[in-house]
Amino acid sequence: MASQTKTPLLDRVETPADLRRLKEGDLRQLADELRAEMIDAVSVTGGHLGAGLGVVELTVALHYIFETPDDKLIWDVSHQCYPHKILTGRRDRIRTLRQGGGLSGFTSRKESEYDPFGAAHSSTSISAGLGYAVARDLAGRRNHVISVIGDGAMSAGMAYEAMNNAGAMHSRLIVILNDNDMSIAPAVGAMSAYLSRTISSRPYRSVRHVARELSRQFPKPFQLAARRAEEYARGLLTGGTLFEELGFYYVGPIDGHNLEHLLPVLKNVRDAEGDGPILIHCVTQKGKGYKPAEGAADKYHGVAKFDVVTGKQSKPTPKAPSYTSVFADSLIKEAEEDDRIVAVTAAMPGGTGIDKFKDRFPARAFDVGIAEQHAVTFCGGLACDGYKPFATIYSTFLQRAYDQVVHDIAIQSLPVRFAIDRAGMVGADGVTHQGSYDIAYLGTLPGFVLMAAADEAELVHMVATAARIDDRPSAFRYPRGEGLGVEMPERGTPLEIGKGRIVREGTKVAILSYGARLGEAVKAADDLAARGLSTTVADARFAKPLDEELVRRLAREHEVLITLEEGAVGGFAAYVLQHLATTGMLDAGLKLRPMTLPDRFIDHGKPYDQYEEAGLNARHIVAQALQALGYNDDVVSSVSA
Amino acid sequence: MASQTKTPLLDRVETPADLRRLKEGDLRQLADELRAEMIDAVSVTGGHLGAGLGVVELTVALHYIFETPDDKLIWDVSHQCYPHKILTGRRDRIRTLRQGGGLSGFTSRKESEYDPFGAAHSSTSISAGLGYAVARDLAGRRNHVISVIGDGAMSAGMAYEAMNNAGAMHSRLIVILNDNDMSIAPAVGAMSAYLSRTISSRPYRSVRHVARELSRQFPKPFQLAARRAEEYARGLLTGGTLFEELGFYYVGPIDGHNLEHLLPVLKNVRDAEGDGPILIHCVTQKGKGYKPAEGAADKYHGVAKFDVVTGKQSKPTPKAPSYTSVFADSLIKEAEEDDRIVAVTAAMPGGTGIDKFKDRFPARAFDVGIAEQHAVTFCGGLACDGYKPFATIYSTFLQRAYDQVVHDIAIQSLPVRFAIDRAGMVGADGVTHQGSYDIAYLGTLPGFVLMAAADEAELVHMVATAARIDDRPSAFRYPRGEGLGVEMPERGTPLEIGKGRIVREGTKVAILSYGARLGEAVKAADDLAARGLSTTVADARFAKPLDEELVRRLAREHEVLITLEEGAVGGFAAYVLQHLATTGMLDAGLKLRPMTLPDRFIDHGKPYDQYEEAGLNARHIVAQALQALGYNDDVVSSVSA
Repeated sequence: MASQTKTPLLDRVETPADLRRLKEGDLRQLADELRAEMIDAVSVTGGHLGAGLGVVELTVALHYIFETPDDKLIWDVSHQCYPHKILTGRRDRIRTLRQGGGLSGFTSRKESEYDPFGAAHSSTSISAGLGYAVARDLAGRRNHVISVIGDGAMSAGMAYEAMNNAGAMHSRLIVILNDNDMSIAPAVGAMSAYLSRTISSRPYRSVRHVARELSRQFPKPFQLAARRAEEYARGLLTGGTLFEELGFYYVGPIDGHNLEHLLPVLKNVRDAEGDGPILIHCVTQKGKGYKPAEGAADKYHGVAKFDVVTGKQSKPTPKAPSYTSVFADSLIKEAEEDDRIVAVTAAMPGGTGIDKFKDRFPARAFDVGIAEQHAVTFCGGLACDGYKPFATIYSTFLQRAYDQVVHDIAIQSLPVRFAIDRAGMVGADGVTHQGSYDIAYLGTLPGFVLMAAADEAELVHMVATAARIDDRPSAFRYPRGEGLGVEMPERGTPLEIGKGRIVREGTKVAILSYGARLGEAVKAADDLAARGLSTTVADARFAKPLDEELVRRLAREHEVLITLEEGAVGGFAAYVLQHLATTGMLDAGLKLRPMTLPDRFIDHGKPYDQYEEAGLNARHIVAQALQALGYNDDVVSSVSA
Repeated sequence: MASQTKTPLLDRVETPADLRRLKEGDLRQLADELRAEMIDAVSVTGGHLGAGLGVVELTVALHYIFETPDDKLIWDVSHQCYPHKILTGRRDRIRTLRQGGGLSGFTSRKESEYDPFGAAHSSTSISAGLGYAVARDLAGRRNHVISVIGDGAMSAGMAYEAMNNAGAMHSRLIVILNDNDMSIAPAVGAMSAYLSRTISSRPYRSVRHVARELSRQFPKPFQLAARRAEEYARGLLTGGTLFEELGFYYVGPIDGHNLEHLLPVLKNVRDAEGDGPILIHCVTQKGKGYKPAEGAADKYHGVAKFDVVTGKQSKPTPKAPSYTSVFADSLIKEAEEDDRIVAVTAAMPGGTGIDKFKDRFPARAFDVGIAEQHAVTFCGGLACDGYKPFATIYSTFLQRAYDQVVHDIAIQSLPVRFAIDRAGMVGADGVTHQGSYDIAYLGTLPGFVLMAAADEAELVHMVATAARIDDRPSAFRYPRGEGLGVEMPERGTPLEIGKGRIVREGTKVAILSYGARLGEAVKAADDLAARGLSTTVADARFAKPLDEELVRRLAREHEVLITLEEGAVGGFAAYVLQHLATTGMLDAGLKLRPMTLPDRFIDHGKPYDQYEEAGLNARHIVAQALQALGYNDDVVSSVSA
């Protein structure tokens, strides 16, 4: 290199093949350069920092030892994939991470052949890896499959299901347990405690131990009794009994930042003959190598843009409180009056605001770990015995507990309250985190009360409402991010169940909004009024029970009825349409225009842009109204283009 | 008792309080009477036999030792609850099991205060029990909570999530692991193997051992190191290490048919002080005490009515092959031509027909255990690597894997094929097993191809179609039970994607059916034609992509358009309505009548009766058409009453 560069080795690595041409002795420096590059990139884009810092050495070692992309490397949840992206042909775009049109913050099959499986929800990697391993065996190929999963992800049942299945099969699958005693918050649960005991009881193990252990795998098998005795003896020594019992060959713990341990251990595992799954227990430190991250409680899990020297994040001053904090404050106020209110989170105490609730009511808040299925049915048990559980789960993660919602809550009509954060478009986290489906997947179930907050004051009222719904399940959804800065009530006032409200009266066009697009509806009404089209705006508040009287009135008294929701097809609009159709309100004609999220996935970007792409901003509403009223295409497209 | 009775002791037991007044020495006889009574009842009703037979002694012992209903006894999945129902005030109705208007085949909160939590899907009991236990602690009460869970249910991640959470909490929860090495099929997976090793390596343990073990729990705690050493030592002796590692106090294994072991062990556990969860490993035999069941491979898991003496089940001769068998045969035929086709079931090899597929292609069928989440993502991995996985899962159980369908399959547009058995009303299994929601919860996701089979010949074509959809996920749904006896094609012919078919041409009324109500639509058309109302009948075949041309044509050319589906609101009708509304086809008026399942839960009964209740039989269709056409109420109600 002619010019001086801070990353001379990294500059030579376009792909892992380049990496594999380096000498082992150069890898320490490469790792340092990679770490520096990643810190610099995330300081510009924001994103997930701590997780990537913790796996810099592991990433280098894996690509060095294994023949990616022929060998399949699957990152669980993939918060930690930025170093991997830098090493796999995407360094030139790394400063576009999470920006509209830029790299995804997660692994993505459409982005790179080095991402064999997209991830963003936790605990899928062992299942996907086993699929790859079995496919390889069926096809008679010989590539390796490596799933890297964090200790926090091990609280999810899905990881256990996959281990239980893999442990009984003969496919060779390499699972790397990246144990940093953290997921997003400190890991909770018995498995986490077990891993801590394992680590605390044993020094790190190096290549010599691993080689000896692996060599003992052959010949096999022992007699059953002898094998068990040996297993327990090894468990006593290594602490891996639990994984051994589940049919994995356990190796570890090893120091995940020490390349002199990592490289030979991975090489040994790669070259070990035999079948069945192997688990390498790798101990790392989240935020490793960047002092501000190492010192922070959350290890800089997710950060805004920041100053590399000081670590100070440049979060813009909020103009209004976030929906999440409004929810938490409201729930605390309700809970002060009603000691039966309890709150449950699945490993997202900070993201959901349940950390604040727990500060106020330590005995009444429960973080069950990444375990949404259990969270929901646990709430069911609490509700049966007279408590008022708020299951506080993001829209996208509630998908994990769908059967529990159907079978344990809805069918039994248990008064569990679902506080559904991150409804609608979520911005930089993108396609895997959009809260697009909850209206449809909950609304199809009998008996639910479904609410959506038009603004943060409405959210306060909905918390109060849900607290008082004692005879059936209820849910209220609210968006990610800041509220609108509306005037806030001192306390929530319970809403009349199944009743919407008129926000503005008009005569020609009616816009019936469900949720936080209401502001866009009002803007659209302004625009339409300026064109001489008198417009009614209504806030439905409830998707179920639907305010049928309001719907019929709007239909009767207007030429055009537009419904608006931050959800995909099959939700609010479906209930409005079904009601109007079955009551014969469409028989004589009505210019109905349901506006939902489009039937395609929407990638990361700013929420405004995502709604632009979705066609759910004010100008799209105006265009719908004009089109329905027969304005010519030029006028319509001048609005919506 | 004056008259001679075969069940003198059981006759004295109306409720568990009566049971607790018996002498311990009488319980053996009571159990024998209870077993005989249950066999006799199920011989009349059909239902789940083997599971109940396996827990007769356990049921007696639990109600004898614990103060039900104040103590909460939660049966997992509750196939095994019939003896419990007989002992808890429901003996007089036990011969109405699973019949319309009769007792549910599962525990049900609305049926009895002795059923603290309804169940029917597997692996929920520990979560619900933990909810009850935590509620008790919060309220300062002292009742016991007992969750009884089978070894098969332990393959589900949800059970692990609950154990992981319970093991880290201080609530006293009693979990009884009912280990019979069976769920519906023989249990699979590493946990199952682990339990087998545990049992085989140790003789049954009696009260003396348990007392000693429990006494060692206090005082506590040991130093960490000492505690670990002790744990491993105990693991070496008892085989319960895995549960101990997860924070449970392990007791067992004990013989679940020996009341002399069961009673004192349960008493000891009940009276043990201290906190934290306890697991009692209880070994039982499915089908115990009834020779035909003991000798059967499936242990008479689910039976038709049968002759008590011979055990011979009186299954009526089928008039047509079942949809399940048609699916299996079709898939085998496709797989003979395409070696990339593989099949996955989650512990339902018999119920889904994958057992037949496995007989033919042993290496290409995978039973992953009760683990739907893993099953789906495992299929994702297989699809990524070039295979064509058919994920063969009942509609109701696919709910368990919803997030995996969204996140791992749909977003990545992976060509996993979902074969959705038991779509629509399922009969005697009732509310917890209805396949009512899959159209809505899958249809709201972008990119899916959704099909529903109108009859068994259509199913053959849909299997062939799905086998050829290589660029995105697809699903096809079909009902439980027999087909219609239609002529069967030799081989499936791939359908044109997104195209429906006209079954009968008419002019006035159009019925657009999605799925197996097509026969009812034709019947309705006959009736309407007899009234002079010329009726078109169309089979949509696809809900997504919707045959928009067909929909528009039907709307344009008819006065009334009725849509018909075996699904709840938010599904097929929603897509038809949304399309018609957004294209302006409703602007000038259309008598649209969407017919979906009603917005309430439908209990067990015969499918015909369930559709009567749902209002989806031929006469309801006729009534809808007449009502839309303005016939007076007398005429309409004469049809639909």
